[in-house]
Amino acid sequence: MPQVKEITASELDTKQFIKEKSEEIARIVGKGTAINALSGGVDSSAVTMLGHKALGERLKTYFIDNGIMREGEPQQIVSIFKKLGVKVEIINAQDEFFAALKGITDPEEKREAITQTFYKKVFGRLVKESGAKHLLQGTILTDVDETVAGIKRQHNVFEQLGIDPQEAFGYKIIEPLVQLRKDGVRKVAEACGLPEATFNRMPFPGPALSARVIGEATREKISLVRKATVIVEQELAKSGAFQYMAILHNDRVTGMRDNKREFGQQIEIRCWDTIDARKASPTRLDFKALEKLADRMVSEVPGVVSVTYNIATKPPSTMEAI
Amino acid sequence: MPQVKEITASELDTKQFIKEKSEEIARIVGKGTAINALSGGVDSSAVTMLGHKALGERLKTYFIDNGIMREGEPQQIVSIFKKLGVKVEIINAQDEFFAALKGITDPEEKREAITQTFYKKVFGRLVKESGAKHLLQGTILTDVDETVAGIKRQHNVFEQLGIDPQEAFGYKIIEPLVQLRKDGVRKVAEACGLPEATFNRMPFPGPALSARVIGEATREKISLVRKATVIVEQELAKSGAFQYMAILHNDRVTGMRDNKREFGQQIEIRCWDTIDARKASPTRLDFKALEKLADRMVSEVPGVVSVTYNIATKPPSTMEAI
Repeated sequence: MPQVKEITASELDTKQFIKEKSEEIARIVGKGTAINALSGGVDSSAVTMLGHKALGERLKTYFIDNGIMREGEPQQIVSIFKKLGVKVEIINAQDEFFAALKGITDPEEKREAITQTFYKKVFGRLVKESGAKHLLQGTILTDVDETVAGIKRQHNVFEQLGIDPQEAFGYKIIEPLVQLRKDGVRKVAEACGLPEATFNRMPFPGPALSARVIGEATREKISLVRKATVIVEQELAKSGAFQYMAILHNDRVTGMRDNKREFGQQIEIRCWDTIDARKASPTRLDFKALEKLADRMVSEVPGVVSVTYNIATKPPSTMEAI
Repeated sequence: MPQVKEITASELDTKQFIKEKSEEIARIVGKGTAINALSGGVDSSAVTMLGHKALGERLKTYFIDNGIMREGEPQQIVSIFKKLGVKVEIINAQDEFFAALKGITDPEEKREAITQTFYKKVFGRLVKESGAKHLLQGTILTDVDETVAGIKRQHNVFEQLGIDPQEAFGYKIIEPLVQLRKDGVRKVAEACGLPEATFNRMPFPGPALSARVIGEATREKISLVRKATVIVEQELAKSGAFQYMAILHNDRVTGMRDNKREFGQQIEIRCWDTIDARKASPTRLDFKALEKLADRMVSEVPGVVSVTYNIATKPPSTMEAI
């Protein structure tokens, strides 16, 4: 992997960066077309804006609805871009993703099933159908570091897309954010006119809510953790924390309803304070806030009889459970 | 089930109660012998003292080491009674219990396996070998209530012991504490000369540490939760809480050691405030105490990368997880 020259957030001149990168995209794509997948996260949102600036309608942006997004998320994201004059097409691929997740309990296999379905099945098909030879990706420097460190696996993206690298001559990946880290990307996103809900968006994992379900991510479990996520995001919006989440456990624990034993479900809440996401500690939330969270979970999320709060630091924990 | 006349803790005259109950035991057993199983809990400890007062050496008391007790517990209990002049015989039945628990993940089946092994295999054998026709049991009024309410199942104890009720004519259960609730039993235990560690002992479940392991209770998992239990009991001894515990989850969560992903184990800590154990709420522990607990868990219990604190109330939670 070639050495990438980092641009730190403090040395970043956003105006200059946006100008250079959109010119670069325009130059590379020439008279052709490009395609990208928007997840709604800050990286892919910034890339969408840069690509749109460079190519206008010649950039085709898709939002792939995998069925494991948060409540109302696909519509919200499309609406944000609509206001900025960027058309995003929603692809309903829920059935394909749930079929791929069926029966899978191992976290790595779950990630892999989502990755494969995203690249090979859904996005791969879109790329091929579009005829676009250029693909915009929101890779950032931290992704590169983690690939080198062996935390994330390095992929040949076109191979992932089911496009034979031999036949695929001419296909090109454009990664305009690869010199930046998250803080730099946020600055670029803001300068591109994206709203604060996007440029300061809390990190959300690629495997979305399936990363918040331990064990098999069925439609039913995703629906439960989606409800729990709404509660956590409402209650902790003003916590000032870096990231907060609800995790639905696979383990069953004993509960009691109407004086009868009920083997119910457990929700774990995590809320993280961190400077650089490399080390993090649980936010010292007020006990009243914790109790309110627990009360809402057991009364609003069907089948939940138990709620916990994460108290371990990263490391040895990670921020996400999966 | 015949109506039992409750004696409340406030109206209880312990001296009178001990005199009456030990006379009653002596009268029922006559010149025969009796047997009982001591778990170290306040109920079976009080019964052991009453029985010993009534029968002396004609009461044979066993402590069945099922392999799922806390660190050093069998030896501590024997030593407490030795100081009071009561001989307790330890029966090492670890292999039998772990064999019975093998492969069982359902909480009800786990309880049942322990109950069956205790009654039919181990204690049943001891009763038959002893020739005793009288069995002392620490049943209290709350146990009766819960049986009536369908929370605990009612059992014919001799049937449980593998003794045919038809042939078993003459076998008799003696339940000297059945009119009392826990607070009354504590007063009796204290008046019998038992140390505070016994009469104010924190509640501990019948299925012992196997109730603190979600999923299969293997020797390895029991050993991990035993280590976690030592830490919780050390750190929270001065919390003033009613009960505190460590639970080893079956779910695996992602952790990080030496920059490498590790699917590790999670410990849940519960600490309860309650008046009457029917309703309970999580103790509002100081965050520094929670962080210290978490740090000790991840550094002292092998494989643990995540620690949570229960924040839900009873109901709908129960105090134990299983």
